Amino acid sequence: MKIGVDYYPEHWDKNLWEKDAKDMKEAGVEIVRMAEFAWSRLEPEEGIYCFEWLDEIVELFARKQIQVFLSTPTCTPPLWLFEKYPEVIQVDKNGRRIPIGIRGHRCMNSPIYREKCEKIIRQMVSRYADNEWVIGYQIDNELEANHCCCPICEEKFRLFIKNKYQTVDKVNEAYGNSVWSGEYSSFSQVKPPFGEHQTWLNPSYMLDFNRYASESTVEYVNFQRELIHSIDEKALITTNTWLCENMPDFYKMFEKLDFVSFDNYPATKLPENEEVLYSHAFHLDLMRGIKKKNFWIMEELSGSLGSWTPMQSTLQPGMLEGYSLQAIAHGADAVLHFRWRTAVTGAEMFWHGLIDQSNVKGRRYQEFCKLCHTVKEWKEIEGSIIKNHIAILYSSEQEYGFKVQPQVEGMHYFTQMKAYHDAFTCLGIGVDVIDWLSDLSGYDIVVAPTLFVTNDKIEANLKEYARQGGTLVLTNRSGIKDEYNRCIMSPLPTVFSELTGAVVKEYNPIGKKTQKIEMSDKIWKGKPFTCTLWCDVIEPNQAEVLACYGEDFYQGEAAITVNHYGSGKVYYAGTVLNRKGMAVLVEFIVKDLGMEYIQGIPFGVERTVRQKESGQYVFWFNNTEKKQDFVSWKVQEGKTPVTERAILEPFEMAIIKEIK
Amino acid sequence: MKIGVDYYPEHWDKNLWEKDAKDMKEAGVEIVRMAEFAWSRLEPEEGIYCFEWLDEIVELFARKQIQVFLSTPTCTPPLWLFEKYPEVIQVDKNGRRIPIGIRGHRCMNSPIYREKCEKIIRQMVSRYADNEWVIGYQIDNELEANHCCCPICEEKFRLFIKNKYQTVDKVNEAYGNSVWSGEYSSFSQVKPPFGEHQTWLNPSYMLDFNRYASESTVEYVNFQRELIHSIDEKALITTNTWLCENMPDFYKMFEKLDFVSFDNYPATKLPENEEVLYSHAFHLDLMRGIKKKNFWIMEELSGSLGSWTPMQSTLQPGMLEGYSLQAIAHGADAVLHFRWRTAVTGAEMFWHGLIDQSNVKGRRYQEFCKLCHTVKEWKEIEGSIIKNHIAILYSSEQEYGFKVQPQVEGMHYFTQMKAYHDAFTCLGIGVDVIDWLSDLSGYDIVVAPTLFVTNDKIEANLKEYARQGGTLVLTNRSGIKDEYNRCIMSPLPTVFSELTGAVVKEYNPIGKKTQKIEMSDKIWKGKPFTCTLWCDVIEPNQAEVLACYGEDFYQGEAAITVNHYGSGKVYYAGTVLNRKGMAVLVEFIVKDLGMEYIQGIPFGVERTVRQKESGQYVFWFNNTEKKQDFVSWKVQEGKTPVTERAILEPFEMAIIKEIK
Amino acid sequence: MKIGVDYYPEHWDKNLWEKDAKDMKEAGVEIVRMAEFAWSRLEPEEGIYCFEWLDEIVELFARKQIQVFLSTPTCTPPLWLFEKYPEVIQVDKNGRRIPIGIRGHRCMNSPIYREKCEKIIRQMVSRYADNEWVIGYQIDNELEANHCCCPICEEKFRLFIKNKYQTVDKVNEAYGNSVWSGEYSSFSQVKPPFGEHQTWLNPSYMLDFNRYASESTVEYVNFQRELIHSIDEKALITTNTWLCENMPDFYKMFEKLDFVSFDNYPATKLPENEEVLYSHAFHLDLMRGIKKKNFWIMEELSGSLGSWTPMQSTLQPGMLEGYSLQAIAHGADAVLHFRWRTAVTGAEMFWHGLIDQSNVKGRRYQEFCKLCHTVKEWKEIEGSIIKNHIAILYSSEQEYGFKVQPQVEGMHYFTQMKAYHDAFTCLGIGVDVIDWLSDLSGYDIVVAPTLFVTNDKIEANLKEYARQGGTLVLTNRSGIKDEYNRCIMSPLPTVFSELTGAVVKEYNPIGKKTQKIEMSDKIWKGKPFTCTLWCDVIEPNQAEVLACYGEDFYQGEAAITVNHYGSGKVYYAGTVLNRKGMAVLVEFIVKDLGMEYIQGIPFGVERTVRQKESGQYVFWFNNTEKKQDFVSWKVQEGKTPVTERAILEPFEMAIIKEIK
Repeated sequence: MKIGVDYYPEHWDKNLWEKDAKDMKEAGVEIVRMAEFAWSRLEPEEGIYCFEWLDEIVELFARKQIQVFLSTPTCTPPLWLFEKYPEVIQVDKNGRRIPIGIRGHRCMNSPIYREKCEKIIRQMVSRYADNEWVIGYQIDNELEANHCCCPICEEKFRLFIKNKYQTVDKVNEAYGNSVWSGEYSSFSQVKPPFGEHQTWLNPSYMLDFNRYASESTVEYVNFQRELIHSIDEKALITTNTWLCENMPDFYKMFEKLDFVSFDNYPATKLPENEEVLYSHAFHLDLMRGIKKKNFWIMEELSGSLGSWTPMQSTLQPGMLEGYSLQAIAHGADAVLHFRWRTAVTGAEMFWHGLIDQSNVKGRRYQEFCKLCHTVKEWKEIEGSIIKNHIAILYSSEQEYGFKVQPQVEGMHYFTQMKAYHDAFTCLGIGVDVIDWLSDLSGYDIVVAPTLFVTNDKIEANLKEYARQGGTLVLTNRSGIKDEYNRCIMSPLPTVFSELTGAVVKEYNPIGKKTQKIEMSDKIWKGKPFTCTLWCDVIEPNQAEVLACYGEDFYQGEAAITVNHYGSGKVYYAGTVLNRKGMAVLVEFIVKDLGMEYIQGIPFGVERTVRQKESGQYVFWFNNTEKKQDFVSWKVQEGKTPVTERAILEPFEMAIIKEIK
Repeated sequence: MKIGVDYYPEHWDKNLWEKDAKDMKEAGVEIVRMAEFAWSRLEPEEGIYCFEWLDEIVELFARKQIQVFLSTPTCTPPLWLFEKYPEVIQVDKNGRRIPIGIRGHRCMNSPIYREKCEKIIRQMVSRYADNEWVIGYQIDNELEANHCCCPICEEKFRLFIKNKYQTVDKVNEAYGNSVWSGEYSSFSQVKPPFGEHQTWLNPSYMLDFNRYASESTVEYVNFQRELIHSIDEKALITTNTWLCENMPDFYKMFEKLDFVSFDNYPATKLPENEEVLYSHAFHLDLMRGIKKKNFWIMEELSGSLGSWTPMQSTLQPGMLEGYSLQAIAHGADAVLHFRWRTAVTGAEMFWHGLIDQSNVKGRRYQEFCKLCHTVKEWKEIEGSIIKNHIAILYSSEQEYGFKVQPQVEGMHYFTQMKAYHDAFTCLGIGVDVIDWLSDLSGYDIVVAPTLFVTNDKIEANLKEYARQGGTLVLTNRSGIKDEYNRCIMSPLPTVFSELTGAVVKEYNPIGKKTQKIEMSDKIWKGKPFTCTLWCDVIEPNQAEVLACYGEDFYQGEAAITVNHYGSGKVYYAGTVLNRKGMAVLVEFIVKDLGMEYIQGIPFGVERTVRQKESGQYVFWFNNTEKKQDFVSWKVQEGKTPVTERAILEPFEMAIIKEIK
Repeated sequence: MKIGVDYYPEHWDKNLWEKDAKDMKEAGVEIVRMAEFAWSRLEPEEGIYCFEWLDEIVELFARKQIQVFLSTPTCTPPLWLFEKYPEVIQVDKNGRRIPIGIRGHRCMNSPIYREKCEKIIRQMVSRYADNEWVIGYQIDNELEANHCCCPICEEKFRLFIKNKYQTVDKVNEAYGNSVWSGEYSSFSQVKPPFGEHQTWLNPSYMLDFNRYASESTVEYVNFQRELIHSIDEKALITTNTWLCENMPDFYKMFEKLDFVSFDNYPATKLPENEEVLYSHAFHLDLMRGIKKKNFWIMEELSGSLGSWTPMQSTLQPGMLEGYSLQAIAHGADAVLHFRWRTAVTGAEMFWHGLIDQSNVKGRRYQEFCKLCHTVKEWKEIEGSIIKNHIAILYSSEQEYGFKVQPQVEGMHYFTQMKAYHDAFTCLGIGVDVIDWLSDLSGYDIVVAPTLFVTNDKIEANLKEYARQGGTLVLTNRSGIKDEYNRCIMSPLPTVFSELTGAVVKEYNPIGKKTQKIEMSDKIWKGKPFTCTLWCDVIEPNQAEVLACYGEDFYQGEAAITVNHYGSGKVYYAGTVLNRKGMAVLVEFIVKDLGMEYIQGIPFGVERTVRQKESGQYVFWFNNTEKKQDFVSWKVQEGKTPVTERAILEPFEMAIIKEIK
């Protein structure tokens, strides 16, 4: 478990290096990431390599016993490369080469680009293969699913389709291309989705394009991974992922990499509306779940953000340390703060680092030193892992499916999942976010929000899980599509109807309007809650009704049901409850299973547990701007509640060791 | 009078056809529209025609005695056609071929495209010419005025200008091209309006371009019409029009067609602000007025809308039947619901039909069956027509004029007309919406809102009408422009000033602000109303003042006047009254003429009358989400009011036969 | 001092000319501007010149003793020119030639364009060189900094960079191009900023591009100026500038011109939020400060605005005259109203002139005649100038710097300056807005808002000023950048820290949020004020604290300080106070210097003074929609306050002569 920083020696006068390294050491920095944008410095002219400066700074850190994590600098090819080989420049959806001057504007599929990448990576990796302080490599930087539309990518996409379907007839069948006379009569008609009006395009085709785009990036990652590995077998290899517009399939992208690393930028200004879920805890659990093991934060929030957008609020006291520790609480084993010192040149100038441009060490730096100290004090946490009994299923298929066809204003795949994640957080229960096709047998509860796009495997996986006694939660907008993104002609939730013991008679996309929800007495006796966005009107055949709608023409009709399936239970929530309502529903489910949970946790306070042979570490985090002074009760069916009082300053993390 | 559906056999497994046809028959479907997007299925390769499947389904319907209305499939040429003849692809205002994959992206003027159209249409029409169950053809689908900017269209537009003006000097004079040195020295400089900043372009030129664009579409319609007619003389021919961004001139487009058909999608979520006019009644009257006879609904709202946009609210109970009957009440003789079953493939997947993707017949389907039943019960209405004594004048010239030069934020040509239409609706009086150059002699009141662009004919038409004793209502933003879209240098309303007996001293474009309106005692004695958007400050020379402004520097100045002209009267409303104020004004005008009208109708309740030799059918429609229980009085100068109580569920249509 | 109009004889039937000229004479018009868009009329075919019509109208005005100010018509080349030489068409940032049909779409650097310009200008100037009534020339029209991206401009920009830096290494160093591998290895890689995502581009490069763009326009102005001057030595030469998206450096653009002229369009609808600063007084002072002498208004608001946007509210009574006199009060020596009569053709149709399209002289025209009369009555003001003791420093560097990198939502360079300008206005004190590198020795107070981009000269200038006893006001976001737009690595305000005797410990970009400000007792004893947008947390080393923050984690920390420097004082305001708070702060500064000022002036009332040998003219302007009846006190340390009551109608200007 270590704290590190992102450092750009190439941005700074050489006479700052020694002092910076010394300061890092004193602060408690144990690892430094470097070089992800340094291609032009490492190869100023084609074939002319200048690694001496990198040798020097690596050596400097080595002397201080600070580890180095290098990056392949392939995200930003030098200008000479673009000038000499303009065909490597990305083509946008209007069919035009992207203007140079930003970053990432290269075609990952370009053979010439790949050739140049290979040369610079070879130089780098072979140079440091024997250096014990250079412990690994970040591949490229913040990769997106490849949406380049250049002729090479066009051909590659065509080939992807051809390989998948073999004949145009099969494509036409899979896509339902008879609609609007969209039938291919030849593969030559297959093109990437050009133009501005992408929601008008065939959703089956669009889903395939998103799959291709992800696969294309995964292939690029594997190209670099194999290359690095072939030179330095022992190097740790990862790539720093993020939540971007065109997300690759995380599970596939990290499959062959050693661990997941994530760029973590929580909000500095918390929303005033209590219903807005802002906590980064969900994202952290998502990252841990990719490889089902601890992960790294490769870039961590260190100051006010802003550059291409105006600046945001600065960090409140406690935020810097609190958010880092929150990442650790959720399974981060290393947190590298972005960045040591704020840039004084370039477009990223106001994306603040630990130290301001003044180079005076201020409040945030002091907090960073405190963080290093805290982490050192808790070094014993190292080796601990997180074991949860609850899983939320994530799938790129839904991510793409929703992106291609937004269902109703305000509904997003991530917020659907976050709503459940938050409800468990309210009960102090940890959650794993895992691949939808994972083995689910170890989990007491599995929540599978909005399984919009389905396939045989997920159907089988969930049935098997429930049959064996699992508690499964399904939601609205599930079972809509088959694997080709065609609607399934069967009552919703179609392939899951056997599980739910209920079907959806009809639905109302209410968007930002709200509905009243009357819950069954055994769940809630207070004032009715509200729900929003979507209302499935449920007809139970076998299931029990847990909640009904309280308004509109479907007043009194079922909104939430539960069904016995095999030895398990299957809940179906046909709507999106408000925050408190969701917590009450989830509490009912948890209580029903006799699970232990906590009552009395205020909104915004998070409890997480890392486990070790010897005991466990409980993390209490106050993710609000208010001091929280509260009493909570650990409850479990048949046990006396354990009462606890906690006082937490804003963004404070309290760590408590519980010895077994 | 019949109810039908839109059906896409090419989207469905063949084994569904028989059952679908049977269900339709049972539900009461009498007509089916098909094939408007089926080109790729009908001609999968150039010159290879596959009509067998269409024969089969037509035959299936024939056996069930369900009529078939076919469409020419020209809206969506197959991909092989675009690939082989890329010059048929539309060019956008940036000069680029539109990316394929949507629909309608072909240049209607392309000779190659026309040639291919002719071939497929010939195949289709000759094939079914002798089939008594194939009763007619829809030309293409939802045509817009042609805004293609390809070289062929560019030349066509140039020719349009050349033919119209003969010399560049005449164009320069007509357009006032001396402004900004915009003078053509050669016709080669005439181009379609390229670029994003179209409001910066010369408005005279832009008006001509919109005229050309409309004419270009009309010519395309006539090309298809003549072709069909030359093969099948007895076929009914129409095209399904809609209210789109680039509207063609409806009167010209339907001139040679047999009847008007319209795609009718009223809002499913009614606005909360009472001042927002949402009723589709105006559009229906507009459609009936195009050919001054009954019309068809070719596509009628059947479920939640959404696809390229997120989904909207579902239909409230009663809406499906109510909106269909509303169309009939306003003159529809056939209503075809879009669509039988919701698509399970393609981009239009969430544009819901009568039956959901589940293929389970639900609430909306039941309501559809009820509708079929209702219509069958009222079969006697067939043959009835609508005769109103009030006309609102519509003109594409204003539509284009306003589009080219929006006058003030929030003011639209359609809402100007709807405000008057609504006021008559409040009094239970039916309105015809007709071409501004129509014969007006049959009407008691003619409202001509915002005659922004004028010409000699409309001036003469209105003068003649008033002279002969008609009551004419003119409004703000009238008489601004001559037929070349140049401002007329004369006191507003310029060519209509003789009619109004008053001129506009000055005006204030107040936009979303409001003004107080103090009406003359003989109109209204209650609290002053408000007006908005625009304030003409009127100077009557001969006219009587009916209302004055109550605020600002023109407080006390005339806002509404009335003038005697010939044997008639001419009202001039220099501002836009709020809803209640407008109803009061219109009531005054109606009362003054001794016309019969109804008092006590709540906002949102509509009364319509269809007439027959034998009597008349009164339709009462509740276009609100509330149950309406109200008493109304039929009043007429010198007659005892007739009182009536009505109770209407939300969206309920009550039909009452009054025998002569 | 004279009133004039902008007139477009080429837009009007010749038979209107004589009457128009006669009416102008009668109204009191003394000068007419013409011909800035008339190229196509003056040269209808290449080399065929038609100046006869211009001769005629010039002669007509001459006969009426109305002066003529001509414009070079180069803003709108004729269509034949674009057709024949398409390479003169501007290229936008997407690399595409701009569609023709608007105005200004020519490349100012194009050699062919320059050649054609020279020919037409030569024709014009030589024709009227001996005409005593043609007194001068406006160069082109509303010039912006040149953002054309055509190949010629690309090369020109490259040359600009090459000349400035000599080697790519120096560019790379100056731009910090090592960031994102942006290093040039050859000048051939230097391009103008293409693409939509300009905030992602290197800010150092972007600042240089903006400098180049300005210089490019200045060079074009000088090309025309020298040409005109070479033919007519005595002609007055100016260009009509405006506040546009791409502003040139005003000081450089007007350096060789005879005087500044400005297009003045104040808002017709005043904002309802009192904190919004809308007065045009700041812009007028900015214009006067460019050449530190009186200026002209070349286009002055005369009616409702609208054309490419919908129309705005009309002018309230008093506005037309009031805004003209406000310009005079701030140093305008001529005010030409745009335009005599509203256009009846072309895209600018609803940009209203003095006379409406009806050609009936209405309320605004009468007010214009009254204005002419007022100005004639006060002819004695001619020759008076404005001498203020307070300066606000303006610099294009900040304008560009802020544009390239907006600091926080809602913060703009202009509003930063206007806030101070307004505070002095509240105290009845006149302000000069001058070039930041001006000699400051004559000023008692110099306010230098947000010196974001710095250089050695400004540092020296301000130090010298303070050292000599000046009172300097510095603000937040100062000293951020060096002249290459790189951040300075030193505590803020870096190069100004010696002056402020305080440094910025950290800052919070709070945007639209507000903070409480607790002022020192000696400034204010009432309720705390608020501040917004930005909070510098100040650490004084030598300075005295004048105000502290009242909330958040920096509660109690310094927000405003004052420091003794040399014989002077330096204030530093680390935040943006609300309007009243700013006035209180500025009053404290003024009082401290023993300066005379006025208390009791309501918000929106402006007092300005023009001076002459013989005495001074005091202008009181009510720039609000309310009648203002107030008592004010002229106060000065040690003097008895002088009390005065004033009653001003909305937009009334009262002029009082005070004889020395």
